[in-house]
Amino acid sequence: MSPFTGSAGSTEQWEHLRVAADDGVVTVTLDRPDKLNALTFEAYADLRDLVAELARTGGTRALVLAGAGRGFCSGGDVDEIIGATLAMDTGRLLDFNRMTGQVVRALREAPFPVVAAVHGVAAGAGAVLALAADFRVADHSARFAFLFTRVGLSGGDMGAAYLLPRVVGLGHATRLLMLGDPVRAAEAERIGLISELADEGRADEAAQALARRLATGPALAYAQTKALLTAELDMPLAAAVEMDAATQALLMNSSDYAEFHAAFTAKRPPAWQGR
Amino acid sequence: MSPFTGSAGSTEQWEHLRVAADDGVVTVTLDRPDKLNALTFEAYADLRDLVAELARTGGTRALVLAGAGRGFCSGGDVDEIIGATLAMDTGRLLDFNRMTGQVVRALREAPFPVVAAVHGVAAGAGAVLALAADFRVADHSARFAFLFTRVGLSGGDMGAAYLLPRVVGLGHATRLLMLGDPVRAAEAERIGLISELADEGRADEAAQALARRLATGPALAYAQTKALLTAELDMPLAAAVEMDAATQALLMNSSDYAEFHAAFTAKRPPAWQGR
Amino acid sequence: MSPFTGSAGSTEQWEHLRVAADDGVVTVTLDRPDKLNALTFEAYADLRDLVAELARTGGTRALVLAGAGRGFCSGGDVDEIIGATLAMDTGRLLDFNRMTGQVVRALREAPFPVVAAVHGVAAGAGAVLALAADFRVADHSARFAFLFTRVGLSGGDMGAAYLLPRVVGLGHATRLLMLGDPVRAAEAERIGLISELADEGRADEAAQALARRLATGPALAYAQTKALLTAELDMPLAAAVEMDAATQALLMNSSDYAEFHAAFTAKRPPAWQGR
Repeated sequence: MSPFTGSAGSTEQWEHLRVAADDGVVTVTLDRPDKLNALTFEAYADLRDLVAELARTGGTRALVLAGAGRGFCSGGDVDEIIGATLAMDTGRLLDFNRMTGQVVRALREAPFPVVAAVHGVAAGAGAVLALAADFRVADHSARFAFLFTRVGLSGGDMGAAYLLPRVVGLGHATRLLMLGDPVRAAEAERIGLISELADEGRADEAAQALARRLATGPALAYAQTKALLTAELDMPLAAAVEMDAATQALLMNSSDYAEFHAAFTAKRPPAWQGR
Repeated sequence: MSPFTGSAGSTEQWEHLRVAADDGVVTVTLDRPDKLNALTFEAYADLRDLVAELARTGGTRALVLAGAGRGFCSGGDVDEIIGATLAMDTGRLLDFNRMTGQVVRALREAPFPVVAAVHGVAAGAGAVLALAADFRVADHSARFAFLFTRVGLSGGDMGAAYLLPRVVGLGHATRLLMLGDPVRAAEAERIGLISELADEGRADEAAQALARRLATGPALAYAQTKALLTAELDMPLAAAVEMDAATQALLMNSSDYAEFHAAFTAKRPPAWQGR
Repeated sequence: MSPFTGSAGSTEQWEHLRVAADDGVVTVTLDRPDKLNALTFEAYADLRDLVAELARTGGTRALVLAGAGRGFCSGGDVDEIIGATLAMDTGRLLDFNRMTGQVVRALREAPFPVVAAVHGVAAGAGAVLALAADFRVADHSARFAFLFTRVGLSGGDMGAAYLLPRVVGLGHATRLLMLGDPVRAAEAERIGLISELADEGRADEAAQALARRLATGPALAYAQTKALLTAELDMPLAAAVEMDAATQALLMNSSDYAEFHAAFTAKRPPAWQGR
């Protein structure tokens, strides 16, 4: 738990996602395998609220985002989302699109690393969820498709036009977002969209192993590294260098930094506490 | 035509470029093959004015930028430009360099995708014109050379020091702009400078096919995707996510989005109108 | 010498670095081979002051940063730096981390290109020093490791969380800074971290050759190219294009630009003066 608590409690049951916590690793599984884990309004809302709650209550050291069944996530459901939005007024359309964007912001700003475990299709909003993670662990079956223009929408959905050029460069990002063509694992690895290529069928296992490694490591150092990577995309060099200096001075007072030195001196592995 | 017209008409004849329009695809050909399509003051001015006019008058759904003869474009003419600038005063030098920069801004800000068809040499300003396009379709003969330092000028010409690091990363961009060494097709593809590698001699054909695909697709979705990609390079994440939300809410009221859903439901291909 | 001099003189002897100047090329060698060139407080201070002094006094046309012995630089010394910082108060910790950041800023803002010659290990602050250079010339033995989290610190050290995503993209940068795993030469080249891959044992030689080429070339053009690359990472497109125009207009009045044209007309190689 966070040391700072107020009146807000924790959600008892996430009804639109499968959520499991295991010693600091929270695994969120999109779990509508018969629909290739197509997202619904409720699944988006649960994602937004869950990540915010995990950030608030503390204790999470790594989050895994996975998909049940044959693929990761096929994006927004054609009937339940596209059909429904056709009947919405302007205010409601904005509410919906802000909610999906909030999921991406929450993932990028969460004080713990996020690992997407991608097998099979990661399409539309599914591709953006994977893109918003810190790590994309994918197997050879992975297929990313930012297919927004194929439904008549903008490729810049949920921050994709911000994030994708910063991950794969403006040339590839333009091609992927404009055309919506599928990107298979080999190309995704070549252009830097994949963090770790796992053996066929082993994306979940490899993602769990990475999350476990992160959860048992120096969590505060990881959280600050992520915060700086996120913030410094939007900052000039001089400000970034100053922010790094203040952060590093702070962490040089942390328990884990002292522990590293003690362990090194004693020739033993460090016992990280994450503070 | 744009629905909003005033007093300004259209240029009857572009004298320094070959311009052809075919059902929404405008093809601009640099057409001085005996000079490897070296640019002149007049060609720059025509490029600046043409792209602005196409953006103003509407109807253009894709622009192809191509070169006649043995290569794409050898850059500014040594006699007609370099020699002439040696005799210019400060104000006129600034006018010239602002004009060339305006061409790049016009290409980046045009409300339609731009496809560069590159074969043979794309040197100096020719390399930057290709860089400013959304897609670079190149064949194996393509050779990019940002050779500004080789004439004693800055590699940051016409926005190249802004664009190139965002396309290929700062390390490669430094090398290319500082040294001016030629980058052949294989390397250009490896570092992300090429969007599509065409068969030898087929760059024009492949660029036309891509432009045709774009012109017959959801043009409004493409235009907004491009606008967001361009704008979000200069925006923090939170603002980008908000801009995406507003854009997507807007497009969810568009004809093409409704058409997608109707077509999907009727199991037929969508008939895009571009609005 | 810079044409503008005041009271400040030049340092007689750099005690914590090996510094050699040869006709415009200054070579700085980290020279504690028995400690894999681990950095000390004094070495950082010398780097900060040396680069500032070279920028102030003029005459430097290229800087080579190299390491003596088996590797480039193993980073901050575990005993002399990590141990010592554990006893520092907050103000002093900030002073230290600001100093290291100043080294990176000085390298990025120096009015001459910086070439890192990397063989063997470039770890921690050593990896960031190489990252701050304009060129990384490395041989097959090179091994980069941003291992800050492994000592309990933030991967965003000395501007690394700003620079690395702009060199290799956000996906690779997150992986490298968060995990601290070593990146061998082949991967470093694939992701764009290396500018030039040299034959085994030839990193120093290749770096010297590149520095010599830069020093005998149009130095003012190189300096402005570097300045624009550095500044335009932090600038919107419109401002960058305007900055390019003003810079190019300025350089069109330079001796080297006129010399290019004269040499081209006379069919002889240009004799660059660097102004």
